[in-house]
Amino acid sequence: MAKKTIGIVGGMGPLATADLFRKIVLHADVKSDQEHPRVVIDSNTDIPDRTAALLHGGADPTPELQKSARRLESIGADVLIMPCNTAHGFYDAVAAAVHIPVLHMIRLTRDTLKARGVKTAGLLATDGTVQTGVYARAFEGSGIALLTPDEAGQAAVMDIIYNGVKAGDAGHDPAAFRASCEALLDRGAETLILGCTELPLALELYGLDLPATDPTLELALGALRFAGCPVK
Amino acid sequence: MAKKTIGIVGGMGPLATADLFRKIVLHADVKSDQEHPRVVIDSNTDIPDRTAALLHGGADPTPELQKSARRLESIGADVLIMPCNTAHGFYDAVAAAVHIPVLHMIRLTRDTLKARGVKTAGLLATDGTVQTGVYARAFEGSGIALLTPDEAGQAAVMDIIYNGVKAGDAGHDPAAFRASCEALLDRGAETLILGCTELPLALELYGLDLPATDPTLELALGALRFAGCPVK
Repeated sequence: MAKKTIGIVGGMGPLATADLFRKIVLHADVKSDQEHPRVVIDSNTDIPDRTAALLHGGADPTPELQKSARRLESIGADVLIMPCNTAHGFYDAVAAAVHIPVLHMIRLTRDTLKARGVKTAGLLATDGTVQTGVYARAFEGSGIALLTPDEAGQAAVMDIIYNGVKAGDAGHDPAAFRASCEALLDRGAETLILGCTELPLALELYGLDLPATDPTLELALGALRFAGCPVK
Repeated sequence: MAKKTIGIVGGMGPLATADLFRKIVLHADVKSDQEHPRVVIDSNTDIPDRTAALLHGGADPTPELQKSARRLESIGADVLIMPCNTAHGFYDAVAAAVHIPVLHMIRLTRDTLKARGVKTAGLLATDGTVQTGVYARAFEGSGIALLTPDEAGQAAVMDIIYNGVKAGDAGHDPAAFRASCEALLDRGAETLILGCTELPLALELYGLDLPATDPTLELALGALRFAGCPVK
């Protein structure tokens, strides 16, 4: 089989893009450089903030998302992935811009949780992801109930994403975020979906040990499988 | 100033490419996604092994290197960087293939050591990098003496690069590599140049604490400065 090329529509944020790329490399079960799939990345930091666009009338990210998708297709990508949950609110427009498949991070995550027999999951995500219902729609009919934080808990999630990870502040206090996670677990969540690509980085950066499901990892594994690469 | 785009000719290996990208993101002194420079990456794992080509009559990597360079230029890169020391043996051919500047990792590293007043440095690199003299040429006339390991020490460096990092073997024994490093320090090296992009990863992976200079980091900082981005 000819080697396939994975294209990453990135920059949302750049560190989450680097994290996805690293996960793709580390989970490829191969023994030399040449056995890895080719990966092309557009860490396009001209893409406007997705939550701002969906909820606060901010600039529409669609044109830049489509531009990146087309550029990656032009240099040989066979499949595209987007390491940003909120950007999946624009999934249809991105998929329509190219002739290659675009894997859907949230549907891949749903399928993994279903296969594991999870019945109740907590959703940690940006206001944009939660309020536009991109997870709710993907999980509809799956038999998995989604719990979201209360208002203060949701504010703590936004705070750690924007003022912690995106601001690059390793000294940020994670107490309110941890409390928000524990409240979801107390309410019956079997796992916490890290429904913003900055959150796996937050857990690492602030040393938080929580029962979590990482959609970035599911996307990395899905892309490797699509490329026909053995995974570990 | 309009934002500049950094292009990474990568895949040599993929993990070193991910490491460089991560360093660019982490060392940008900015507070939001949109302030980061745009970064485009071709992790082109079709590029044949550079050491094999330079020393053992292996396939010539030039055509694939040039293909990646042109692809990145075609999607808007303003400057190119190559996170592979051995690939700098093909620097002139890559630079000739495009109309944008290509930063030279080894010359950037030399300039940093010179500014720090280093007089003697140990060179840890592949056989291809050492024997083709890509470091020796760049350091000529700089006033910095370069020490290289003896035959057994050089074999230990190749072993940790290929059977450790590139093979993804976290359980690989680093003892021979550590001894090779200590021998260079005993001979008067003030710092060890990690002259293969897998070696910063080796130090991390095997928990080795050594006085080292990381050309990948110098390249990341050089690219950020070219892009007009404040660094930290």
